[in-house]
Amino acid sequence: MSRRERALELAAGRTLVTGDPASVAWLTGFAPDIEWGPTPFAVPPVAILEPGGRVRAVVSEDEAPGLAGDVDALTYPGFAVEDIDRRRASLDVVLAALPAGPLALELSSLPGTLARAVGARDLVEIDLQSARAVKDPDEIEAIRAALRVADVGQAAARAGLRAGASELELWAETRAAIEASAGGRTPVLADFVTGPRTAEVGGPPSDRLVGLDDLLLVDLVPRVGAYWADSCATVALGEPPEPVRHAHAAALEALEAAKAAVRPGTTAGEVDHAARSVIEAGGGSYPHHTGHGLGLTLHEEPRIVPGSERTLETGMVIALEPGAYGDGWGLRTEQVVLVTDDGHELLSRHDLALRR
Amino acid sequence: MSRRERALELAAGRTLVTGDPASVAWLTGFAPDIEWGPTPFAVPPVAILEPGGRVRAVVSEDEAPGLAGDVDALTYPGFAVEDIDRRRASLDVVLAALPAGPLALELSSLPGTLARAVGARDLVEIDLQSARAVKDPDEIEAIRAALRVADVGQAAARAGLRAGASELELWAETRAAIEASAGGRTPVLADFVTGPRTAEVGGPPSDRLVGLDDLLLVDLVPRVGAYWADSCATVALGEPPEPVRHAHAAALEALEAAKAAVRPGTTAGEVDHAARSVIEAGGGSYPHHTGHGLGLTLHEEPRIVPGSERTLETGMVIALEPGAYGDGWGLRTEQVVLVTDDGHELLSRHDLALRR
Repeated sequence: MSRRERALELAAGRTLVTGDPASVAWLTGFAPDIEWGPTPFAVPPVAILEPGGRVRAVVSEDEAPGLAGDVDALTYPGFAVEDIDRRRASLDVVLAALPAGPLALELSSLPGTLARAVGARDLVEIDLQSARAVKDPDEIEAIRAALRVADVGQAAARAGLRAGASELELWAETRAAIEASAGGRTPVLADFVTGPRTAEVGGPPSDRLVGLDDLLLVDLVPRVGAYWADSCATVALGEPPEPVRHAHAAALEALEAAKAAVRPGTTAGEVDHAARSVIEAGGGSYPHHTGHGLGLTLHEEPRIVPGSERTLETGMVIALEPGAYGDGWGLRTEQVVLVTDDGHELLSRHDLALRR
Repeated sequence: MSRRERALELAAGRTLVTGDPASVAWLTGFAPDIEWGPTPFAVPPVAILEPGGRVRAVVSEDEAPGLAGDVDALTYPGFAVEDIDRRRASLDVVLAALPAGPLALELSSLPGTLARAVGARDLVEIDLQSARAVKDPDEIEAIRAALRVADVGQAAARAGLRAGASELELWAETRAAIEASAGGRTPVLADFVTGPRTAEVGGPPSDRLVGLDDLLLVDLVPRVGAYWADSCATVALGEPPEPVRHAHAAALEALEAAKAAVRPGTTAGEVDHAARSVIEAGGGSYPHHTGHGLGLTLHEEPRIVPGSERTLETGMVIALEPGAYGDGWGLRTEQVVLVTDDGHELLSRHDLALRR
């Protein structure tokens, strides 16, 4: 079943309406700019999936070209000199577009004004998060493309690491490589920490200067088009002390164990256990998930966490990221896999070696 | 009147509830990360202003330290290994926190679930956008600080401009200077176009290579803390042709005319006319506003557009950006001013010269 078929099944004969940016992108292909927050010339888009399968999107005139070819654009004015109440304009377009009949709403994602306007109608609340976990072939290709950009960023961070540079300098070089590779501006969430900061698991780059024997923990999460990649490596400048080398070997072993556990029918909790038990057998631990799905959001179902009974399915895309954190140091290694009928396919290609 | 006093006046004895990120920041000081879109470990914050003046904010546990000291944090779990429905958790905290009595809601900014849950209560819809136009002293200082960062970016773009470099390379250098100046990652909206792309008014940096006699149009809009700056300059590499020099002189003259018109009681339309008429007298035109307020958003009231009867008030902060666009070229110059009792104070300090 394609994603629209799954959405129609969930809507169960009702008209589906969502304002969740990930659900809107899932149904319409539209990925708004995010790096500078809300634009003054548009409000968040709304997608409408009718029981017959027609998809309509309420967007500003400027945004309509970003919709997939088979989606009907219902627009209000975009950039303009005139004063326009776009919240009201968008709401009016949505209300005019809603067919008669029962509704299925991603209610928490829709504006209160819309909820109030349709309050007297027959409606149920639905949630598309779980349905988004299994990816269609075009989504997998989009994630592959995003991962190639993440790979470039990982290579740049690894190559640029040097004592005396600030984290922010190395970050700027890494991001420049990412944007050159993507051919334009690229949203990126990143952990970019060196030296003792690696013990904090993550954090943004700071003005800290890299020391002679530092570790760099670099977790790069770029969005290319509508889809996110995820990647992490830990790189040592000098010869790291034995506990770090030991922990890094354990992290790689845990990553292999997690990948080996991935197949349809396995639970997320079993995959978590496969990785976490390797780290714990070596005397280490990590205070976070072992992994998570990714796609139209950077962290989604299935969450690879202790005890989860969510079963893996062919077509899920999962980032796996065991690590270990000690006194004054920390490290993590992360790869992304596709769940296939007989196991997994590795989608990441970046270098995970501790030493350059 | 301080901003909270103005908000209380607008609420008129009701409990004010908002989910508009700018209103939340205005009331609570909280500025969420925005560069990578929604986080999986929090939902948008909600602020509650009670008639007695108490301000409460519903945020994740991780976000509570970002609130101003006099704001009560009402929290739900942030980063966690466990699965948590944070939309539901946040809603439950908001509903439990709402005092009895009538409500005043920024309804379009609040989730549909919340609107539905309070639908039977006495409520009115309000809008804080206009009230945010006049800035408190601490807000003006925050905008000054953001403008110093924008100044650094403008200087870096001007100094780095060279034939053979790509727009993306120059952009990376500019952004690195901005982030070094700000001491960390910094959201920036930017027009960064060269050569014939300047005729398009704006756009993001591309892989286009700068030519020997190109113009660079660079409009930098960084957020520092919760507040935005805005700045634009146009820089020529070679000796620009006469029409460009003429238009640039007209743009500077228009900017001076706009600033000279700024004082309390003047209408936004009069300021627009002061600038636009200078450009039009020289045979040029620009297809956009003359300016706009800025603060907790990058484009807000008062909008400086033709015919606007909105009057300026002391404490408003306004970006003024007349330009001119021809066949294969375009240029724009922008400065930010504070409306003072007797006119304006110039807040921008970057170089506006056409030639380096």
